[in-house]
Amino acid sequence: MATLGLIEYNEASPEVRAVYDNIMATRKTDWVNNFWKAIAHDPATLKRTWEDMKEVMAPGALDALTKEMIYVAVSVSNQCAYCIASHTVSARKKGMTDQMFKELMAVVGMANETNRLVAGYQVEIDEQFKPQNQ
Amino acid sequence: MATLGLIEYNEASPEVRAVYDNIMATRKTDWVNNFWKAIAHDPATLKRTWEDMKEVMAPGALDALTKEMIYVAVSVSNQCAYCIASHTVSARKKGMTDQMFKELMAVVGMANETNRLVAGYQVEIDEQFKPQNQ
Amino acid sequence: MATLGLIEYNEASPEVRAVYDNIMATRKTDWVNNFWKAIAHDPATLKRTWEDMKEVMAPGALDALTKEMIYVAVSVSNQCAYCIASHTVSARKKGMTDQMFKELMAVVGMANETNRLVAGYQVEIDEQFKPQNQ
Amino acid sequence: MATLGLIEYNEASPEVRAVYDNIMATRKTDWVNNFWKAIAHDPATLKRTWEDMKEVMAPGALDALTKEMIYVAVSVSNQCAYCIASHTVSARKKGMTDQMFKELMAVVGMANETNRLVAGYQVEIDEQFKPQNQ
Amino acid sequence: MATLGLIEYNEASPEVRAVYDNIMATRKTDWVNNFWKAIAHDPATLKRTWEDMKEVMAPGALDALTKEMIYVAVSVSNQCAYCIASHTVSARKKGMTDQMFKELMAVVGMANETNRLVAGYQVEIDEQFKPQNQ
Amino acid sequence: MATLGLIEYNEASPEVRAVYDNIMATRKTDWVNNFWKAIAHDPATLKRTWEDMKEVMAPGALDALTKEMIYVAVSVSNQCAYCIASHTVSARKKGMTDQMFKELMAVVGMANETNRLVAGYQVEIDEQFKPQNQ
Repeated sequence: MATLGLIEYNEASPEVRAVYDNIMATRKTDWVNNFWKAIAHDPATLKRTWEDMKEVMAPGALDALTKEMIYVAVSVSNQCAYCIASHTVSARKKGMTDQMFKELMAVVGMANETNRLVAGYQVEIDEQFKPQNQ
Repeated sequence: MATLGLIEYNEASPEVRAVYDNIMATRKTDWVNNFWKAIAHDPATLKRTWEDMKEVMAPGALDALTKEMIYVAVSVSNQCAYCIASHTVSARKKGMTDQMFKELMAVVGMANETNRLVAGYQVEIDEQFKPQNQ
Repeated sequence: MATLGLIEYNEASPEVRAVYDNIMATRKTDWVNNFWKAIAHDPATLKRTWEDMKEVMAPGALDALTKEMIYVAVSVSNQCAYCIASHTVSARKKGMTDQMFKELMAVVGMANETNRLVAGYQVEIDEQFKPQNQ
Repeated sequence: MATLGLIEYNEASPEVRAVYDNIMATRKTDWVNNFWKAIAHDPATLKRTWEDMKEVMAPGALDALTKEMIYVAVSVSNQCAYCIASHTVSARKKGMTDQMFKELMAVVGMANETNRLVAGYQVEIDEQFKPQNQ
Repeated sequence: MATLGLIEYNEASPEVRAVYDNIMATRKTDWVNNFWKAIAHDPATLKRTWEDMKEVMAPGALDALTKEMIYVAVSVSNQCAYCIASHTVSARKKGMTDQMFKELMAVVGMANETNRLVAGYQVEIDEQFKPQNQ
Repeated sequence: MATLGLIEYNEASPEVRAVYDNIMATRKTDWVNNFWKAIAHDPATLKRTWEDMKEVMAPGALDALTKEMIYVAVSVSNQCAYCIASHTVSARKKGMTDQMFKELMAVVGMANETNRLVAGYQVEIDEQFKPQNQ
């Protein structure tokens, strides 16, 4: 369930159906996951989010797997259970091995730890790290 | 400045100096950044954090650059200015190009956006995404 | 369930019951939701939180619905499932339409995205935005 | 300063300049703030973010001022100093009075407090608040 | 500086001055820090926040120092630089030694790390940890 | 369930079993909770995290109970349900009474509230609170 319920394909408007079709074609799957069915209540947000997602997640200077792992890293930091579950599956489909997953988690854990040590010790940015000195 | 001040090499205990030496040798640099000088007030934390960092950030199934970019992604989500500045520099040293940085930011932004759409629409995890169904 | 269990009306002390009565009278309902029954184990916190809530959420320069939507926005950013569920219902009772909910979510998503782009690009505050220049 | 520096109008590509022109025309101002000049290094992100922003922040079922205040609420929860400063100014331009700002802050503070009381007391969602019961 | 500026004692209304007086008397100091002077623009919030703070931070089952350290722990997790600086000073005044501060930071770092390992590995709550089994 | 499943004692490698044995011996219990069984898929992380945990959580200038309550405070701020449940149980085992728990929650709530008031009012750090003036 979701706040406004989920819009299934057979009850979707042509506008929403077009996005669902594009999602399935792009991902080469025959189903659409709950996230899209939930936000389909707002066709403008559905369309905008899907198009942004396609553009942002497409392989470029970073390959598709690296991008998925970054997505997982952010979702883990934010404690978004749905996003962790879905993007971990996506990352696996794009080639994330168990070993890669474990290293990903170790880095995410470590970064969250040192982010707070830095804050707590009130560490100032070194001159060498300031953008104007790069 | 930092809460307890920064411990410079020449005033450091042999124990702290050994970690500083190892940091510089590992990174092939002749300086140590403020983070380590700040936590050096707690030699146990200094040593443990540095050893964990070396282990976690060493290239494995994920290369060193990918790990640095994940570090940046987490630090950006957490709004840790020091960590963003320092790990962005580290990532650049390990080969992050401008284009890679831009794509990294786009993914981090996108993930933070959809993490909240998921929460707000109260989307439940699809059966297909549950660990037991993997 | 909750850490210390829930205190039902018929087992509540007169002190707690007085707060429950006030909650129901203020909200014109005949039940009290779990949040209050959970923190009722700490009557001082129950009383203080309820009185603060009444004061803060009362219509003023901002109407009650706007305040509820702000509450939802914060809860979504913080990934508090309970608060999202309960305050979304409250907002609906105060007049939030489906369309308003969708726009609320779109803004919350967008803000979370740009909050991170700003951090990642290390953008400095424009002189024009500094409080002393307002 | 920003990670990659700021791209000023006179050094911008036609593509970037078109977005800057649109920002100034839409906002009826003669300057562009640092955020856009920083992300202009990534013209695709600049264009996508600006177009999303225009669409999302346009008055609809929620007026422009309410949307700005929601933006501020999220930015405050996330501790994004730049976003707080810039969107507080935007909200004022759209009519936020001192009194509205103060009430906004009070709600944001309160929501952040109760979000944690709920988590700490491990409060379960009431049946009445579950989406399927709405 | 602050959004609305700071209200100094000599320009404060009697209502605000009464709170300032109470802050100084309670803390046995002759000055009021910026936080209170900033929120003094909203006398209701000033009064409510100060009274809540006095009630919540007063020694009880937890002593005043432990409460201050918990305050610092939360502020560090949330990256609130002002709160870290001010409550670290308060904790020191209440007896926090360097060694206590270092241990506090180590725990905060560790908790932030494992919070994410738990999320990323999607660990379910053990039956033994559920409130109903306590 | 967890992403990679849980590794039970009887199927664990000698390396993992050694850590499990040490966990049970240190805690004087005859079971290992899900967190460790989940990360046991990565023996290096299991070992490192457990050793760090033992070192960090051992009584020192702060007693074991205070450390557990700080752990709970951080986990509550981060909305980590698993960590809240498990460390609340640990804290109780180390002597946290109901009254201490309630006061802990009150402080955590309050700190989360004022962290945002500070951010929203854009309060600058008082000279008296800066590390160099301590």
